[in-house]
Amino acid sequence: MNSVNERLAALRSQMKQNGVQACIVPSADPHMSEYLPAHWQARSYFSGFTGSAGTLVVTETESGLWTDGRYFIQAAHQLEGSEIVLYRMAVKGVPTYTEFLADKLEDGETVGFDGKMLSAASVEEMREKFADKKLKIKAVDLIKDIWTDRPDIPSSKVFVHDAKYAGYTCKEKLEQIREELKKQHADGEIFTKLDCVAWLMNIRADDIEYNPLAVSYAMVYSDSAYLFINTARVLPETLSYLKENGVTVREYEEIDRALQEIHTDRTILVDPVNVNYDLYMLLKQNSHVTVKEGGDTVIALKGVKNETEIKNIIEAHIKDGRALVEFCVKFENMMKNGETVTECTVCDMLREYRAKQPNNMGESFGTIAAYNANAAMMHYSPKPETCSTLKNQGFLLIDSGGQYLEGTTDITRTFVLGPISREEKEHYTYVLKAHIALAMAVFLEGCTGGNIDILSRVQVWKHGIDYRCGTGHGVGMFSGVHEGPQNMRISNNVAFKKGMTITNEPGIYEEGKHGIRTENIMLVTEFVNNEYGQFLKFEPITYFPIDTAGILTELMTHEELEWLNNYHRLVWEKLSPGLDGKELQWLKDRTQPIQKA
Amino acid sequence: MNSVNERLAALRSQMKQNGVQACIVPSADPHMSEYLPAHWQARSYFSGFTGSAGTLVVTETESGLWTDGRYFIQAAHQLEGSEIVLYRMAVKGVPTYTEFLADKLEDGETVGFDGKMLSAASVEEMREKFADKKLKIKAVDLIKDIWTDRPDIPSSKVFVHDAKYAGYTCKEKLEQIREELKKQHADGEIFTKLDCVAWLMNIRADDIEYNPLAVSYAMVYSDSAYLFINTARVLPETLSYLKENGVTVREYEEIDRALQEIHTDRTILVDPVNVNYDLYMLLKQNSHVTVKEGGDTVIALKGVKNETEIKNIIEAHIKDGRALVEFCVKFENMMKNGETVTECTVCDMLREYRAKQPNNMGESFGTIAAYNANAAMMHYSPKPETCSTLKNQGFLLIDSGGQYLEGTTDITRTFVLGPISREEKEHYTYVLKAHIALAMAVFLEGCTGGNIDILSRVQVWKHGIDYRCGTGHGVGMFSGVHEGPQNMRISNNVAFKKGMTITNEPGIYEEGKHGIRTENIMLVTEFVNNEYGQFLKFEPITYFPIDTAGILTELMTHEELEWLNNYHRLVWEKLSPGLDGKELQWLKDRTQPIQKA
Repeated sequence: MNSVNERLAALRSQMKQNGVQACIVPSADPHMSEYLPAHWQARSYFSGFTGSAGTLVVTETESGLWTDGRYFIQAAHQLEGSEIVLYRMAVKGVPTYTEFLADKLEDGETVGFDGKMLSAASVEEMREKFADKKLKIKAVDLIKDIWTDRPDIPSSKVFVHDAKYAGYTCKEKLEQIREELKKQHADGEIFTKLDCVAWLMNIRADDIEYNPLAVSYAMVYSDSAYLFINTARVLPETLSYLKENGVTVREYEEIDRALQEIHTDRTILVDPVNVNYDLYMLLKQNSHVTVKEGGDTVIALKGVKNETEIKNIIEAHIKDGRALVEFCVKFENMMKNGETVTECTVCDMLREYRAKQPNNMGESFGTIAAYNANAAMMHYSPKPETCSTLKNQGFLLIDSGGQYLEGTTDITRTFVLGPISREEKEHYTYVLKAHIALAMAVFLEGCTGGNIDILSRVQVWKHGIDYRCGTGHGVGMFSGVHEGPQNMRISNNVAFKKGMTITNEPGIYEEGKHGIRTENIMLVTEFVNNEYGQFLKFEPITYFPIDTAGILTELMTHEELEWLNNYHRLVWEKLSPGLDGKELQWLKDRTQPIQKA
Repeated sequence: MNSVNERLAALRSQMKQNGVQACIVPSADPHMSEYLPAHWQARSYFSGFTGSAGTLVVTETESGLWTDGRYFIQAAHQLEGSEIVLYRMAVKGVPTYTEFLADKLEDGETVGFDGKMLSAASVEEMREKFADKKLKIKAVDLIKDIWTDRPDIPSSKVFVHDAKYAGYTCKEKLEQIREELKKQHADGEIFTKLDCVAWLMNIRADDIEYNPLAVSYAMVYSDSAYLFINTARVLPETLSYLKENGVTVREYEEIDRALQEIHTDRTILVDPVNVNYDLYMLLKQNSHVTVKEGGDTVIALKGVKNETEIKNIIEAHIKDGRALVEFCVKFENMMKNGETVTECTVCDMLREYRAKQPNNMGESFGTIAAYNANAAMMHYSPKPETCSTLKNQGFLLIDSGGQYLEGTTDITRTFVLGPISREEKEHYTYVLKAHIALAMAVFLEGCTGGNIDILSRVQVWKHGIDYRCGTGHGVGMFSGVHEGPQNMRISNNVAFKKGMTITNEPGIYEEGKHGIRTENIMLVTEFVNNEYGQFLKFEPITYFPIDTAGILTELMTHEELEWLNNYHRLVWEKLSPGLDGKELQWLKDRTQPIQKA
């Protein structure tokens, strides 16, 4: 019997014992993290699908996995042989999993889920959707007795991220939060997202692959602050730092008790989108607590980078660009000499070249090195046993990033390895035009990702093509590579502010053929301020040449070519001072201005 | 004493008698109309400001007028000499009038307003904003005893708009509404907007300048339908038509009683954004009525034009284009011969040439013929005593439209009358690029004005310029020239649908210098449908040459010039069959393709 089907059978047995007729196993941890420690990869354990996003739903007779466009191909492949049906999210006619449950269950039946794995907001939303059908919900951990070889909660060493990188000390940040709480008439706030706790406390660790974060919670009151963390793992100097900054450290597991033990009347700000249902309910059920729902104040603050952070982030990008130049010189030489180079070779080399840079702290996500048709899978990840061997033909898409004490990088380039078709050149050029359209945007303060996203997208839409993802995302500061609140997608409604960073990564993904993406991180900066208001613009802070070999210059406007040539001049200025020999020559060659054919 | 100040003194006396410490006099009628019959122009009567949008607020010691960017210049001018302070809406630091009232009034004081002149939603919003300050509200008509020479409610003849234009009979439309009501589990709906009643009943009249509508209300139930109108004014054949289509006609004033007299239990759909507070409260207070709040079902239906309407609307635009060609030939000849031509001459001539077209029913709004700096006032309206005389120099902006049985038109062209500066040419070209960017847009179904607006706006934003208005609006079918729900502005969230029409009218307005706008109406049509979904695009249905004399071709891309040349070919194809002689030759000259200098 298929091992996934066996696990689902065990889950159904637990469902029965606990009186629930269906259960939801999301991709989630108690911190609403995007990247999950192995301890919390239950959805992957029970479904066999290893992508970063997806939800497993199990009823007494059926099971389904919901995932988004990035993973349609991978999920279909990984679910083969199991009973699980793939539901393609946001595709016309495909129900959401709540619609599915409302359809499949009988009036009055119960849906179970682990209350620490869903946010308070998503449970509330679910409750509303189930109201018509009178479905009940029950927070219950069905998994603990089945998943016996479950990995431990990670416990890497916790160190201080110095204010020379972060711009402010922990104490200063706590004061910023207290200012915000005062404005919102709240006495305290609970922080549950790992990147928020790390930013607030100026701590980092290595708990989650690619994310220099520590599993922890924080509570801030007007007169005190608490960090809930496995104290055994916190370095002594970190403990001192926290104490000096007015933070009391308690054990990770004590968070529940701490919320139950609030004995003086407090108005606590809670972000229901990020705080898990169990903690939210503990606060709600405490008669001394008035829950005030609102956005996490750290998310709003950390989205806007301060001047020290910006200086450092730019430094990180210069190092990253140089590492990539060194990689490229070596890579092209290997290709020229006919050496065997696979997608995995590329990943390994990139890791090595980044690691040589001072203060490199690893990668910011698993490198996507995707050759030709593999790149049509947006989040393809090459495996040693199946990865492609590169030839001097077609495209190689490389999406990679590094973690440095100075900042987090995220860059995609699509390299032309040899002859490509007319259609490939057209698509490459459309993607570049989409990238440039956004890079050149000027907009009034108040504009959101929902307002701006189309500048990029219309460049591929006009050819009847779409990319099934946002055009960009915020980026952390030596933190998660994906961070809010800003976001470049049609549905976003957060206004861009000076100091925010955002990726610019339109693409074209043609199943079975090719995948193209060109990605820079951009910084929001000020343009003119006049009678119309404050205008903002974007400045690229990723420095690496864009392969001009794929461009059909006749499809480019003069303005677009001018942007490209200016960008390449900037790349040369930023990277050349630290390079010499073959690397310097390579950079010079690749940053030459181009013009209409 | 200034007559405005005298009227305000009388108003304050009424305020005192009625126990209110402040009052709001909006630009409004009981139907939330944009263009007001003289009977309801109280704000204009009490403030002296004649613009189409603005709100007068009067406290015991102060008074203020709130208006938007279109009217900043005009309002400042018209308020001179009165006590009223101008508050520029949406300008940083300027309070809204509710903020102003919350600031100026003491705890527990009362704000009065005529409950028929504010929508239920805006009163609710006001109530929430006043909650912190514990301000009370009171619906009371303070004006009736002061404004003694108030004009009557209009009573023009009411005629039938035939299904050969409208596409459906009144009976068919009632069935469409009943289908919608069934979906929404409602037994009835109240319609209070004049364009909604006119669309639903297939009736038209001439009550309001430029708006072929009749002052009336309608109620639709699953088994009956009512029109509330001054019956003396309804033509006998119209009465027969309504009866045949299942509509009972009652007197206009009976609406209040009709809502009070509902004696069987009914769930009534009410759009609080469009239904006035008094009527909303009558329904709320009727124990047999369950008020279900939701969007007006007619607004959603009439926003999407049917095939018959589209065929007719295109016909209207062809006639309108020909009238404009005839005007231009005459106008240019007069200018060449040195005749005295003023802005008002232009308005008169346009009215005459449109009137010559079969089925013309007047104009769709007051023509804006604005010479040079006058055009910087977005909604400038020339007056005989002050209007400018045209010279063979600079720009003449003409924004005008006609009402035809076949449809409503709205077109702006900025004509180059002679030498213009480099800056004027640049601005003219930026506006054209902004227009073309929107005209060429391709987008996925689901996109809203908020998503798309920026395509146009970024073309002027990149030069640090904005236009303080939306990029476009929906257009009625032989009805109001402005109509929702679609709208081209940053804040809009209504998805475009095939069959909707929308204007494309970016501009540049430089106070004291010039104003430039290029406007076409566009129809939403289908582009490709593929694995990414249904793509939509825009097709221009306004047919008239765009003056190429202002264009700096070196600032245009090849793609933009190609659009312009294709558009001019379309104009030639549509208009030339009905023209000959000088007019045909003029059209031929003005639709010649242009290329880069």
